[in-house]
Amino acid sequence: YNCESQNMERLLKKRQIRSQLVRECIAEFLGLYIAVIFGSGSAAQVITSKGTHGSYLTIQLGSALGAIFGILVARGVSGAHLNPVYSMTLCILGCHPWRKLPCYALSHLLGAFLGNALNVFFLYVNTDAIQVFSGGQLSVAGPNATAGIFCSYPAEHLSFWGGLVDQVVTTAVFLLCCVALEDRRHGPLAEGLHPVLVGGLILTVGLSMGSNCGFPLNPARDLGPRLFTFIAGWGVEVFKAGGGWWWVPTVAPFVGGVLGTLTYELLIEAHHPDTSNEESHVLMNINLRCTDCEI
Amino acid sequence: YNCESQNMERLLKKRQIRSQLVRECIAEFLGLYIAVIFGSGSAAQVITSKGTHGSYLTIQLGSALGAIFGILVARGVSGAHLNPVYSMTLCILGCHPWRKLPCYALSHLLGAFLGNALNVFFLYVNTDAIQVFSGGQLSVAGPNATAGIFCSYPAEHLSFWGGLVDQVVTTAVFLLCCVALEDRRHGPLAEGLHPVLVGGLILTVGLSMGSNCGFPLNPARDLGPRLFTFIAGWGVEVFKAGGGWWWVPTVAPFVGGVLGTLTYELLIEAHHPDTSNEESHVLMNINLRCTDCEI
Amino acid sequence: YNCESQNMERLLKKRQIRSQLVRECIAEFLGLYIAVIFGSGSAAQVITSKGTHGSYLTIQLGSALGAIFGILVARGVSGAHLNPVYSMTLCILGCHPWRKLPCYALSHLLGAFLGNALNVFFLYVNTDAIQVFSGGQLSVAGPNATAGIFCSYPAEHLSFWGGLVDQVVTTAVFLLCCVALEDRRHGPLAEGLHPVLVGGLILTVGLSMGSNCGFPLNPARDLGPRLFTFIAGWGVEVFKAGGGWWWVPTVAPFVGGVLGTLTYELLIEAHHPDTSNEESHVLMNINLRCTDCEI
Amino acid sequence: YNCESQNMERLLKKRQIRSQLVRECIAEFLGLYIAVIFGSGSAAQVITSKGTHGSYLTIQLGSALGAIFGILVARGVSGAHLNPVYSMTLCILGCHPWRKLPCYALSHLLGAFLGNALNVFFLYVNTDAIQVFSGGQLSVAGPNATAGIFCSYPAEHLSFWGGLVDQVVTTAVFLLCCVALEDRRHGPLAEGLHPVLVGGLILTVGLSMGSNCGFPLNPARDLGPRLFTFIAGWGVEVFKAGGGWWWVPTVAPFVGGVLGTLTYELLIEAHHPDTSNEESHVLMNINLRCTDCEI
Repeated sequence: YNCESQNMERLLKKRQIRSQLVRECIAEFLGLYIAVIFGSGSAAQVITSKGTHGSYLTIQLGSALGAIFGILVARGVSGAHLNPVYSMTLCILGCHPWRKLPCYALSHLLGAFLGNALNVFFLYVNTDAIQVFSGGQLSVAGPNATAGIFCSYPAEHLSFWGGLVDQVVTTAVFLLCCVALEDRRHGPLAEGLHPVLVGGLILTVGLSMGSNCGFPLNPARDLGPRLFTFIAGWGVEVFKAGGGWWWVPTVAPFVGGVLGTLTYELLIEAHHPDTSNEESHVLMNINLRCTDCEI
Repeated sequence: YNCESQNMERLLKKRQIRSQLVRECIAEFLGLYIAVIFGSGSAAQVITSKGTHGSYLTIQLGSALGAIFGILVARGVSGAHLNPVYSMTLCILGCHPWRKLPCYALSHLLGAFLGNALNVFFLYVNTDAIQVFSGGQLSVAGPNATAGIFCSYPAEHLSFWGGLVDQVVTTAVFLLCCVALEDRRHGPLAEGLHPVLVGGLILTVGLSMGSNCGFPLNPARDLGPRLFTFIAGWGVEVFKAGGGWWWVPTVAPFVGGVLGTLTYELLIEAHHPDTSNEESHVLMNINLRCTDCEI
Repeated sequence: YNCESQNMERLLKKRQIRSQLVRECIAEFLGLYIAVIFGSGSAAQVITSKGTHGSYLTIQLGSALGAIFGILVARGVSGAHLNPVYSMTLCILGCHPWRKLPCYALSHLLGAFLGNALNVFFLYVNTDAIQVFSGGQLSVAGPNATAGIFCSYPAEHLSFWGGLVDQVVTTAVFLLCCVALEDRRHGPLAEGLHPVLVGGLILTVGLSMGSNCGFPLNPARDLGPRLFTFIAGWGVEVFKAGGGWWWVPTVAPFVGGVLGTLTYELLIEAHHPDTSNEESHVLMNINLRCTDCEI
Repeated sequence: YNCESQNMERLLKKRQIRSQLVRECIAEFLGLYIAVIFGSGSAAQVITSKGTHGSYLTIQLGSALGAIFGILVARGVSGAHLNPVYSMTLCILGCHPWRKLPCYALSHLLGAFLGNALNVFFLYVNTDAIQVFSGGQLSVAGPNATAGIFCSYPAEHLSFWGGLVDQVVTTAVFLLCCVALEDRRHGPLAEGLHPVLVGGLILTVGLSMGSNCGFPLNPARDLGPRLFTFIAGWGVEVFKAGGGWWWVPTVAPFVGGVLGTLTYELLIEAHHPDTSNEESHVLMNINLRCTDCEI
């Protein structure tokens, strides 16, 4: 039985894009778009309902589960990086071509921007949830602040240097575990378990390292929504808040990503005994996962 | 060893129905019946216990886990759609014959109706839990409202158009992810992981898009229980409430389903490079799952 | 490499029991023992800590996860029924010999009894947790009641008939899903997923049908601990409470088990089309799981 | 495509350590380091945020999920024991050479020490979270106590003997289940499910046996952080508190581990019927998991 209608097939064939890079960028875009809808959506639900429709755990679960479905939407086409830091890490390890990095990063930025723009507009602005909650005032701080739905702001106790270090350390631990999950030496994972474990990892980071400044971990997922709030009415305060906090979650995760990856490579990967040439390659799972990748 | 008693086998053989369509409809009926018992049951438990035996998360978990077991009960016979929107989506994609759609939808409606009727009658009406909670008054709004146990009502802040858009957007995101889960290009899933991921998806939608009007996502699961409450004593108010809200979760999900499916098809599926003819078919998992299907 | 020390091997060989039935009974005993330690333990933790070390969800999760590990401890030897109702169901379906049923049921009773006796004695009586909480008075009702840690008592609103029906309906839904999980027609499950799903099912029942009278589901798991509390100081009140409630969760689950199993058999199983003789057997998973079973 | 950059490969080759034991110790170190960062981190987040960024469940989930990722980081190199009690158990069963035990135990101690030292310093001391919470006073008891973030202290009601028994019983149940998870007789587990189940087991113990004195289960994970707090400013009180409590979670788990292992061996393992010589070995999963192990 041919599981495709003639009409649908004709429609799809007309639109087919043959550029591998464009296809991958669309997949990365849609993947982060989906992840962000669920992540920001859960924050919006908890904050605008004043806790009647969720708690802090809701936000952590929403971010984690959102990432799982973002990955499942994109993985067969592009490997589902969904994070420019992760793309950069794969470039460093030689698993992804450097020339693709800017395209991927831009797709991530756009996905996070539009995911928030549409999601918020349709689900929470359009439905008045945010207006009713905030009394019509889109503010970055104070009891009715809604900017925290979209991107990270530092807790009051957090100094600038503290925040910088927090972002470096948090992303380092995150990437170290991500790279370990790809290391074939630890044996295979049941099909489809990998995305679930990445979601579990995001949940774990949220449970244990989220109270200083949220757990952005992802420059695109932080800067994209911040740009959206800047345009959508929260104004320049989104960049000024926390002493110009905005660039910390944009830059520090790249530093943390390199640190975490190198730590794993030097402590574990470097010492795997050589076996056959083919078997000695790190991070084979990525290639297995990404069925269409050019690399 | 023959894992079937002679008596049981004789009993079963007598009752055997040979019509494939009837068998599938019974499976769809029982699947949604089971899903609804757990979904509505968890709402009833939280509301009638006034939060001592659960919280908002309980309802979200109950709906998600209920769907998993509903799918596991039906999937080998009919593929376990459990949602007329999903059946329609598969028809559009050419994976399911259009002529079966009305039968499936009716089975869903009946399953959701009876699941609530029996569940409520035996577990919460019969045991006085609802009577004690509501002071004997079956009301749709107010502090002792119990109609929200069965089907969705809009939050106070929600305008009519807001609700309509919410339902379209929510179902679109839901169906987009459902279709992506079936796309073979993303690689196989470990046996039995698919139903668990669909449950996780329902949980995710509940965590991030549930505060405007619940997350019906499923016309049958909303209209069936509404009909039951209409008959069972809540009266015509179940249709009048929220400015005649009832038809929104009945109609809007179909629009959202088409939107979400087309988005995935045009952004991802359309651009999969052609490989062998057999391998190019979308949504193969469905056929693999449904061992008896006629299609 | 031989993963067994010479000393250990000699020690083990001396003790080897060759009777298949005794081996199976020991496994069933230990499985429910483990399940009950975790299930009752989580209730004890929540109640004696007055909610500072857990909430109602803790008890539901503890029961569900406890069952998973109980099954994992026993499944290779006996198939891990851990519930006389489930054993009876398998007998009816011809998957388990009737003559073994009493031995299994007794093992379950003993496991639940001793699991509570040791667990409570060592972890909560011995450590004074229960004494400090209850002011030294082991009571069945009232604000400092501790009997509910061990076995089920009906909620105040629950009539006798309401409770009886609740137990029949709850166990029927539970067993229907258990039997469906074993039906090969729904396709295989990834190795080790089956116990996890049974745990998920217990969680689901707890989330949606737990507020009337807990969710005993298992006569041995209810009567065993009740006998323990009778002996250990709570006295005859454990049998008198709720108008002689005790026999309801002891008898009603057997009725519910038959009902649920027959419902599944008549609605789904009976209509599976005949294929090859070998393939037509229901419930093959059980045999695959239980590597040593005699049957 | 060769998934390794030339530069990275050259860098890694230079650092390669050829000693199998050193490699295993580094893996054990890093594994527990990661597990402890997440475990202690979640406790720090809940306590310093005064419950706004998590609840007691957060700590239990953080410990469980942390263990999963600790195992996933180390398992291919050393089998990921992450606990000297578990290493000792494997030695007793003949699955691990005794001469490696001290090295493993020391690696665990160092991992738990440094995991806390760096984690706390960078994420909670450096960022003033602990200072702001505690008013600058690092205390072991009282409302602003922060020592409980790092290692276990007994609840007020707990007598010395009660605590000793609690630790023996808790670790016995934990190890019994761990050994059962490795017993091949229960059938295989889907790839990657084993670490998830170990995490689930830790969660279960936390849900049901955590209110007396936390659920250390692991001497290295308790003593390491205690040494850190001793040095870092909490002072000698960390050893004096609870009547010299510190040595109970350091010693009692070894006793419990032996008890639990022997219980499983004598009740289940001893009675497995002999099949072929190769198939009769217990605990084969370990060898399968640890791809590089010398044993």
